[in-house]
Amino acid sequence: MLLKRLLFKSLGEKEAMRVLLIICDGMADRPVDRKTPLQRARKPTMDAIAEDSICGISDPIGVGIVPGSDTAHLALFGYDPYKYYHGRGVFEALGAGIKLYEGDVAIRCNFATAEAGTSITDRRAGRIESADAEALAAAIKQIKIRDVDFFFNHTVGHRGVLVIRGAAISPRISDTDPHQPTGAVAPLMKSRPLDATEAARRTADALNDWTRKVNEILKVHPVNKKRKQAKKQQANIILCRGASPPPVGIPKFEEKYGLSAACVAGGMLYKGVAKYVGMDVIPVKGATATPDTNLQAKVSATLDALKKYDFVFLHIKGCDMVSHDGDAAAKVKFIERIDKALKPLLGLKDTLIILTSDHTTAVSLKAHSADPVSIAIMGDGVRVDRVSKFDEVSCAEGGLQKINHLDILPIVLGLLGKAPMFGT
Amino acid sequence: MLLKRLLFKSLGEKEAMRVLLIICDGMADRPVDRKTPLQRARKPTMDAIAEDSICGISDPIGVGIVPGSDTAHLALFGYDPYKYYHGRGVFEALGAGIKLYEGDVAIRCNFATAEAGTSITDRRAGRIESADAEALAAAIKQIKIRDVDFFFNHTVGHRGVLVIRGAAISPRISDTDPHQPTGAVAPLMKSRPLDATEAARRTADALNDWTRKVNEILKVHPVNKKRKQAKKQQANIILCRGASPPPVGIPKFEEKYGLSAACVAGGMLYKGVAKYVGMDVIPVKGATATPDTNLQAKVSATLDALKKYDFVFLHIKGCDMVSHDGDAAAKVKFIERIDKALKPLLGLKDTLIILTSDHTTAVSLKAHSADPVSIAIMGDGVRVDRVSKFDEVSCAEGGLQKINHLDILPIVLGLLGKAPMFGT
Repeated sequence: MLLKRLLFKSLGEKEAMRVLLIICDGMADRPVDRKTPLQRARKPTMDAIAEDSICGISDPIGVGIVPGSDTAHLALFGYDPYKYYHGRGVFEALGAGIKLYEGDVAIRCNFATAEAGTSITDRRAGRIESADAEALAAAIKQIKIRDVDFFFNHTVGHRGVLVIRGAAISPRISDTDPHQPTGAVAPLMKSRPLDATEAARRTADALNDWTRKVNEILKVHPVNKKRKQAKKQQANIILCRGASPPPVGIPKFEEKYGLSAACVAGGMLYKGVAKYVGMDVIPVKGATATPDTNLQAKVSATLDALKKYDFVFLHIKGCDMVSHDGDAAAKVKFIERIDKALKPLLGLKDTLIILTSDHTTAVSLKAHSADPVSIAIMGDGVRVDRVSKFDEVSCAEGGLQKINHLDILPIVLGLLGKAPMFGT
Repeated sequence: MLLKRLLFKSLGEKEAMRVLLIICDGMADRPVDRKTPLQRARKPTMDAIAEDSICGISDPIGVGIVPGSDTAHLALFGYDPYKYYHGRGVFEALGAGIKLYEGDVAIRCNFATAEAGTSITDRRAGRIESADAEALAAAIKQIKIRDVDFFFNHTVGHRGVLVIRGAAISPRISDTDPHQPTGAVAPLMKSRPLDATEAARRTADALNDWTRKVNEILKVHPVNKKRKQAKKQQANIILCRGASPPPVGIPKFEEKYGLSAACVAGGMLYKGVAKYVGMDVIPVKGATATPDTNLQAKVSATLDALKKYDFVFLHIKGCDMVSHDGDAAAKVKFIERIDKALKPLLGLKDTLIILTSDHTTAVSLKAHSADPVSIAIMGDGVRVDRVSKFDEVSCAEGGLQKINHLDILPIVLGLLGKAPMFGT
């Protein structure tokens, strides 16, 4: 088989084709006043891609399942999340370059605002600036609860990663994050063991104690006094979610598909999922995973990466953030910014371009929703259909019809002439 | 059940409806210069069928799986290939009318061209003529390697069937055929045991020795000397693929569906799959499974068969062959020939016509591809949609949407009023 691949390579045919997967996080939406943000935006680049593509809609996980960003990305890479997903923490840790050891528990964290230590009024502490978060993080860097060590790492903005280390601890514990939408108030959740083991009970108890201790430290921290004076949200608690074990026996993307792969992303989670499946992560200056990210720098890093890698994953976060904030106008504007930034990609030769979203983030819900997302696949061999607009409604009339995110990589391999054969 | 069938028969209703399944092998394709051969061809008959049909696209096996002709046909007949497929050889043997005994191993063979006995430069020996192949076959008809007997049977053109017979042999051996596309060079593969049994090891070893012996005999054969003088490719080796056991407990088509069934085909494989599921095979003079086949004779045999059988499978091979040779113009021309030949079928009454392909054979790849194929179903009770062209892009807009080949027979049974009921 290897010999055959080398042989085909020597023919210099399909092997030269590169793949670019563009994920605009949470770009798909529901209509507000009869139009989705994609339908409302002026987006000549995306429409040009749709025009030259086979289009469709794709269920990230399945009908009626609201995808997480992590599970949706595993599916986009062709990894069944029901098999390969063991919690978000590990992706955040990998994305932040944190080394994990066997037995560790990795947890995704938010700086948040709590009233009286228990009522969460803002899950992101007013989207706290990185500098403030960094200063606060220094005060809670390493805390020991009984015989369990808690290592806290700030990453970007309100985000952080907690690593719990100790004898006989377990990732089978529930979140302390109440996950309410922006603007809503919810009680801090108590972490509970998710199985009957002593290790899970000990870990949940220690995490609850750690959370109280962190609140005691942060609420009197000078940074929060300064924030109060500046009428900014207090960052006086840490919310935890997605406790997970270090990566276990995940097949590498390159071994699975025979494609060397790289990731261009700002957000820790996306870099983390990419590392989880064995992609290289390209560092990009100014890629912040916020709407003020340097899109030009990311596109330019993508163009460079396409010279070296068979498969490049470009992740753009902004749409998801403004959707979680319920800001439809900002979403339309950010889609238009993405569209301008993507223009240089239209000139690419010998490249299969897949344009889609990981999931729908509905501005009206300020949350992810279960709706399928629009998708376009452009490149050599594609059966171009009549769809000429890249939006959720137009793409539903396309030749791909409805697929699942798990179908995307198999379709790509088929177009590259690398799909497996069954029969003769 | 029988009583009910007789009763319906006496009402003279649905029982009178016949089914004609037309498979244009490898007709579906990808665009070359923005159009697929089906989109380019003038094909008023197929378009008239699409116009009066419910259309759609169908995945032969599944998304991203490249179908073999054998697995695709099992699926077309409603037999899950993952359950009923045990290698191609048995279909070729059955198709050629070769009797198999328990313990035999049946293998599909190609006359091919080898340089220095090991480098395969043409997998089909320049598509050797049947007369030459027949003469060469006589020299290798029966060869004994240690205590294992090898019976070689030439069938049509470059094709043949090998039956291995002996105590304790096994079909669990890999191919010697390197399966490279036309124009590429690849090394002869060594057959390897596919499981740890002594029988598989012995069989693979014996097959490798047989292949060497055959090469020694064929390379000095007068037919090859003549071919050299005529500047034709040497047919100096036999490539093997699809080692398989004799048929095992396959439910008969008529028992499974209550439909008597017949096959009109030129190619051994297709006759073989039909026999495998218990269809009668109608002999047709001039049906060669090549582009010079007598299509009129096949259509006329089909019309006759429809008078005697409930279900007739008409197989037309030519498109697949010219696609494997990468000849887009010949493909368009052959589609137009098929279209003319099918015209008499438009007049059929009380007949459900299904027009589709077993799989896509991409001219650009000179190989099968994983893409879905276009399908049209015409006849009484069908919800006719707005599609009026029978091609891959138009049919994707049809009312069937995307189905799987395994859905076709259940849909047919439904239209015949023979589908099973669940609930009351």
